[in-house]
Order: sequence, then C-alpha cells, then structure tokens
Amino acid sequence: MKKNNSIGIGVIGCGTVGSRFISHFKRKRASVREKTGIDFVLLKVADRNMGGKKGRHPSYTRDPEEVLSDENVDIVVELIGGMEPAYSFIKKAFSRGKSVVTANKALLSGKNRELFSLASNGGVHLGFEASVASAIPIVKTLRESFIGNNITKVMAILNGTTNYILTRMSLHGESFQEALEKAGSLGYAEANPTLDIEGLDTTHKLSILSCLAFNKTVSWKNIFTAGIRNLDAIDINFARDFGYRIKLLAIAKKFKENLELRVHPTFLPVGHLLANVEDVYNAVYMEGDMIGKSLMYGEGAGGSAAASAALADVVDIGIKLAGQKPAGSPLLYENEKIAICSMSDIRTKYYLRFTVPDRPGTLALITDILGKNGISIASVLQKEENRNYAVPVVIMTHVATEHSVQKAVREIDSLSIARLPTVLFRAEE
Amino acid sequence: MKKNNSIGIGVIGCGTVGSRFISHFKRKRASVREKTGIDFVLLKVADRNMGGKKGRHPSYTRDPEEVLSDENVDIVVELIGGMEPAYSFIKKAFSRGKSVVTANKALLSGKNRELFSLASNGGVHLGFEASVASAIPIVKTLRESFIGNNITKVMAILNGTTNYILTRMSLHGESFQEALEKAGSLGYAEANPTLDIEGLDTTHKLSILSCLAFNKTVSWKNIFTAGIRNLDAIDINFARDFGYRIKLLAIAKKFKENLELRVHPTFLPVGHLLANVEDVYNAVYMEGDMIGKSLMYGEGAGGSAAASAALADVVDIGIKLAGQKPAGSPLLYENEKIAICSMSDIRTKYYLRFTVPDRPGTLALITDILGKNGISIASVLQKEENRNYAVPVVIMTHVATEHSVQKAVREIDSLSIARLPTVLFRAEE
Repeated sequence: MKKNNSIGIGVIGCGTVGSRFISHFKRKRASVREKTGIDFVLLKVADRNMGGKKGRHPSYTRDPEEVLSDENVDIVVELIGGMEPAYSFIKKAFSRGKSVVTANKALLSGKNRELFSLASNGGVHLGFEASVASAIPIVKTLRESFIGNNITKVMAILNGTTNYILTRMSLHGESFQEALEKAGSLGYAEANPTLDIEGLDTTHKLSILSCLAFNKTVSWKNIFTAGIRNLDAIDINFARDFGYRIKLLAIAKKFKENLELRVHPTFLPVGHLLANVEDVYNAVYMEGDMIGKSLMYGEGAGGSAAASAALADVVDIGIKLAGQKPAGSPLLYENEKIAICSMSDIRTKYYLRFTVPDRPGTLALITDILGKNGISIASVLQKEENRNYAVPVVIMTHVATEHSVQKAVREIDSLSIARLPTVLFRAEE
Repeated sequence: MKKNNSIGIGVIGCGTVGSRFISHFKRKRASVREKTGIDFVLLKVADRNMGGKKGRHPSYTRDPEEVLSDENVDIVVELIGGMEPAYSFIKKAFSRGKSVVTANKALLSGKNRELFSLASNGGVHLGFEASVASAIPIVKTLRESFIGNNITKVMAILNGTTNYILTRMSLHGESFQEALEKAGSLGYAEANPTLDIEGLDTTHKLSILSCLAFNKTVSWKNIFTAGIRNLDAIDINFARDFGYRIKLLAIAKKFKENLELRVHPTFLPVGHLLANVEDVYNAVYMEGDMIGKSLMYGEGAGGSAAASAALADVVDIGIKLAGQKPAGSPLLYENEKIAICSMSDIRTKYYLRFTVPDRPGTLALITDILGKNGISIASVLQKEENRNYAVPVVIMTHVATEHSVQKAVREIDSLSIARLPTVLFRAEE
C-alpha cells in the first residue's frame, strides 16, 4: 500500500518489447500523471545483455535481483518470456509484496492457476493484458466489460506469423516455405518459428482466454492442436473454390457446462468476419448472451502494441495501489462445473480430400463408407480428369462428429484405392 | 464507503433497456457474486408507467424519489434518457453520495463536464459505458486499455438505424423512404427517428468519445453534422462505380494539438474495415501511436447489449465501493491545449456531382473553376449521354480544403449550366 501518489516500476528484460516499453513509458509519464494523478517512476531496468551506453546508466543493471530487492519498486514488469527464470522472478516479486505485469503467455498458460492464487494470497496484482493479442484489450474486456455475459463462443486469430503465412499463400499464391521465408525476412517470424507454426503459441493464448471467458483453467497440453506446417497449396485452392478461406483458429465453444477447446487450420466462409483478417493482424470473435456477436481487431504483436498493453496494466495496478484498494484478483475464480469435451466428441463440418484413381466406382466406395458412419455430404468437387493417375476428390460434409469422421477416414485410407492419406480440415461458420 | 460486501442497486426507468437490465441482473446475480465476491442487491425500481403485476411488487414504484432517498441504494442506474428529469435525478443521486450508471448519451454529450466534476467533487462514480455503442466496451478501452496512447484518429459507425438504412439502400437497392419504413417495422427506428437520421445521435456519441480519446469536451452543438435524409440512390450507385461505400461516420482526427470533429455521410473505399459493417451493427476504428490500427465491432443498441454495458459499470463501481477505493474519476481531465479545427479548414477528398447540360465545354468550365481554387481531380465519370437534358457529371478530387471546395461549388452553382445544386460528399481512407 502506498502512502503517496508515486509508484515505483522495475523492468526485467530489455528486448524488443522491453525497450519499447521503456521508451514509451518515459515519453508518456507526464500525460499518464495528468490523466491519473499518479506519478509512475521507472527505478530499475535489468537485462542480462545490458552493456554499452545503457550499461553505464545507474538505473540499468545485469542483475534482476537488483530490481526484485529494491524496496521502492512496487510493480515488476517481466518481459523476458519463457518458463525459467521468469517463473522464479515472478514468485520472488510476489513474495516481496510486489505486483507483476507480464507478457509471458507460455508461462501463464502453464502456470496460470498457481500464479493467480499466489498473487491473490500475497495481496498483490498480476497484469497480463500483453500476453494475448497485444493491441486488443481482450483480457480486460472478458474480465470486466463482458462480466455479465455467458460467453458461448470464442474464435480467434492469435498468431501474427501464421496469419501472415496464410495470407501470402491464399492471396499471393506462395508456397508455405516461400511465405515462411518472407515472414522471417520481414522480422515477423522468430528465428525458431516452431511454436508459431505448430500452433502452440495460439494454444498458449487459448488456454489464457479459457480462464477469462469461462473461468476454466486448462493446460495447453490438454488442448488439441494442429499447426500449418503441412498445409498444401492444393487445399488453399480448393477452399477458394468452395467459398472458404483457411485460418489458424483458436476455437472455444460452450454448450451448457461442456467446453470444447481446439486449435487447428479451419475453413471459414469468405463472408465471415475472421476470414478477412489479413497479414500479422489478430482478431477475437465472441458470442455472449447479452452482447450478441462481437469482434475486436488489432495488432497482435510488435513491441509498441505489447508495450501499450503492459503500460495499461501498470497504470491499472498503480491506481489500485495508490487507492489502497485491497489487492488480489477476485474475478478469476474457477468454475468447477465446467467439463472439457474430448476432441472425438466435437461436431462440426469437414473438408476431406482423397487421392484416388479416376475410375468408375471410386466415389461410390467413398460415399458408402461416409454414409455408413452417419456422415452426410454437402458437396463434392473433382477438378481434374486423369485416367492413368490418382486425382484429388474433395468432399465438404454436413455437421458430423469427429470420431465418426476419423473412423470413416481410417476405413477409406485402408482401401487399395487410397493412394495418399486423406487430408482433413474442420470448417466453422 | 461500504462496510461489507453487499452493494444496493436502484433503477430509474423500466423501458426496453431497463427491463432487460433487471431481468439479466436477477439471473446473473449469483455468477457475479462468484466472480467478484460482492453481492449486488436490487432494492428499488422506479418507472412512471409502473402498473399491473409489477405495480404490486414492493420493490417497484412510480416515484423515483423512493430510489433516490433509499439510504441502502449505493448505485442508481438511470435508464430513462433525455435531458430532464434525468439530469435532476443524477444530480440528486450525487448529492446524496450515490454513484450513477447511465446510458443517457444526449445528457452526457450536453452536460459531460458538469457531470464529471459533480461526481469527482462528490466522491462518487459515474459509469456511462452503455451510452456509446453498447456491446463495444469503448469507454473502458479508451480510458483504461489505451491510456498510454496518443490517439490520432477515430472513425466510427455509432447509429444502428442509419447504418441499417444505408445497408438496405446499398445492397438491396431500396430508396431512403423504403429502408426507413423497413427499419421502423423491425423496431430498429424510433417512432420519431429524427435524431438518428439527422446524424445528431451520432454527434452526441462523438462528443462523448472526444472526452475519452482526446480529453477534450466539445458540446454536440459545436460539431459539424450532416445526416442522411436527403441521400439519393444515384450517389450510392456512383459510389459503387468508384469502389466506395457510403457510411454515416463520426470522424475525429488530431494533428498535434488540433482536433477535427465531424459527422456526415462519408465515402469509404470498399476495402476499408468500416465499409463492410452492415445492418444495425456499430464499429469503432482507432489509430494510436502504440496500438497502431484497431477496430471494435458489435451491437450498438438493443436492450441486452446496453444492459450488458450497464451491468459491467455497476460491477466496476461496486468493486471500487466495496474496496474503499477513493471515488472520483481522475482519468477524465481536460486537455486545455487542444484546439478545435473549424470545418472550413478540414482537408480531405471530395465527391462532387454536378447536374449540367451534356454539351462541349461544360466539363472545361467546371474543371477550370476547380483548378483555380487549387482542387485537383482524381477521376471523372459521366455515364449517360443525352444532348437534350442535363446529365450527372461526377468528379472525385484529390485532397483539398473544405473552404476551397465550398468556394468552387458556389462559383459553379452560380453558372447558367448548373441545373441543380452540386451534391457534395467527403471521402476518407
């Protein structure tokens, strides 16, 4: 609790986001003081690569302990990312009565329950707006603005790198590899883009959104995840022919107390609000019983957008500390009634691409197996004709259950006509 | 200040929004208590038309004074709308130490400065999320989430009725009158839709957004406003030919300390995020120095969406009251440095439709006058040919100043070739 209207800030991690945070923080200090009546003072910055000009500045240090042990630091801004040592730093900050602001989605998605309860028990605050879709205030919106709503659906584009790659593949006809290289050369893709491309970065963020939208903690390890690494241009083209776009979506749907969570490349009708979110932008689409349909769109990454979110958290917590508001986060309770659906129980529409010989009876074999598994067909497309080689046959289904579709695909793939394994995508509306 | 975790609520006004608020409030009470640890209790509801079954319930009354004088009511939810008696009720609530939540955009746009300072001086809270674009949490986003940003641009569709009419005219070829009647029959248009159609409802909301985005209070009376009553199908069709859509926009742009505010039907390129917001939906597009480009989309009206926003305000204020946070609204200071631009100084692109005889030399006369006024032409369209009658000639200009365009139009309209006054629209990008 503060006795005056001055709040001390310490930063650990001075990479892209950290350095932007610091430069914006310094420029905005006067205007934030005018808006809030509180003076936020940057006391210490720690980065293990600190050197050169910065290294000589008294407030810069290589030792995070200098931030964590400074008794005038009220809020620690953790911007190093990853599990350790970030996790230890945050726990240490809490144990010393300091609040924390973080952009660390990997840590939050693995340790959210622990972190929320440590903060609550320690009487301190944890801000994490910057961890999901930086420029979109989705954390505050779900926790506060939509508090009265029973949220029934969230569908979101949460990873800028993969959305950029999909945009290049869809609109510019590039291959996955070409698009990935372009993303790298523009600085959109990480040196190691595995987390992005495999969909895990999106899953980390969906895990955080689950706490906020449904008060249900689910580890990212328990969320079905499929990435875009093996995405073939042929499916992007077929999607267009059927009037769809392919997007890597985080999907959450709640029916009564059953919650369905998954991340995979998804067919979306071209008219869908999310189908036209291009390049590195993020967007979150939500449905709630009071708000109806809602969409928020903005930059998902980039130093300044994340710095904006972290700064908003710092100000929020500063206002609470200066006002002697009791700390802790009563909004993040756990709804024990919620059950997580198994992936095999989900029901949606499917795109199935078979690679089979172009001869009479082939389609009958396929449709017979689909029919016996209770899967009804919405449309069929077979573009090329080639009596000598296998051709792609594409089927869009009506709504079916995942387990019956998987079973049918296994049966079809075991037939001698199946020249390549069936390619499957899920579609949403 | 509350001694326990129970907050008393009183409602004045039980129309569409009020009755939805009350029914949602009752259904959500337990879940809000679980999320916040606070018990919100509905103590009194006043409506001058209260009767029948409700009239016999002890908590329902015809007399607003019963709400305002109940010492257990901590928050008064004002949902009657209009200037009086709403203004008196709110002042009375403040004077008795009660906080207020309101959806009253007309009152807020006229009396915002008075209301903010009355609340601040009285140590009470004023929540008004429901006053602008109900399901879009734009008040909280601008005040809190984007607090670090220098907002440089806001363009918004804030009136569902007019957006519905424009959608019907653009996509379904209906006339203004047909579309207005359809809006009325679907319950989208008020019995007296003047405020909507003349653009004033949008201006009220832009006045509120100006306080939030720029910390600048501007009465709606000082904001240039043009509605859609005289919109002609011919201009909607020409817009399409040029690759534009016409939307009634609230526009705010800040260059350094100069603020430009205006409401008018606007040409938007079809690829613009706002161009495809259809039917009764609202959307707010923003640019800031940290967030970049951002868009929020959702229901603008409807009882449940407004009730959602009012409920979020009630919970926000309840948390502050229960936590003994000192009240008042330090976030709404006035930026005295901001100067409002005069409409004649704005610079944008223009669509000009002349009605002139189809004979040699006509276009030369027009372009000569435009050129002498420093207005350069981006494209010209003349579809029909008719030697006997006047025809429409349409010119899209490059960026020009309003006063030079108005001067050129006056000169052209005074020529004998001008068979009808020039029709002018402003375009944005």
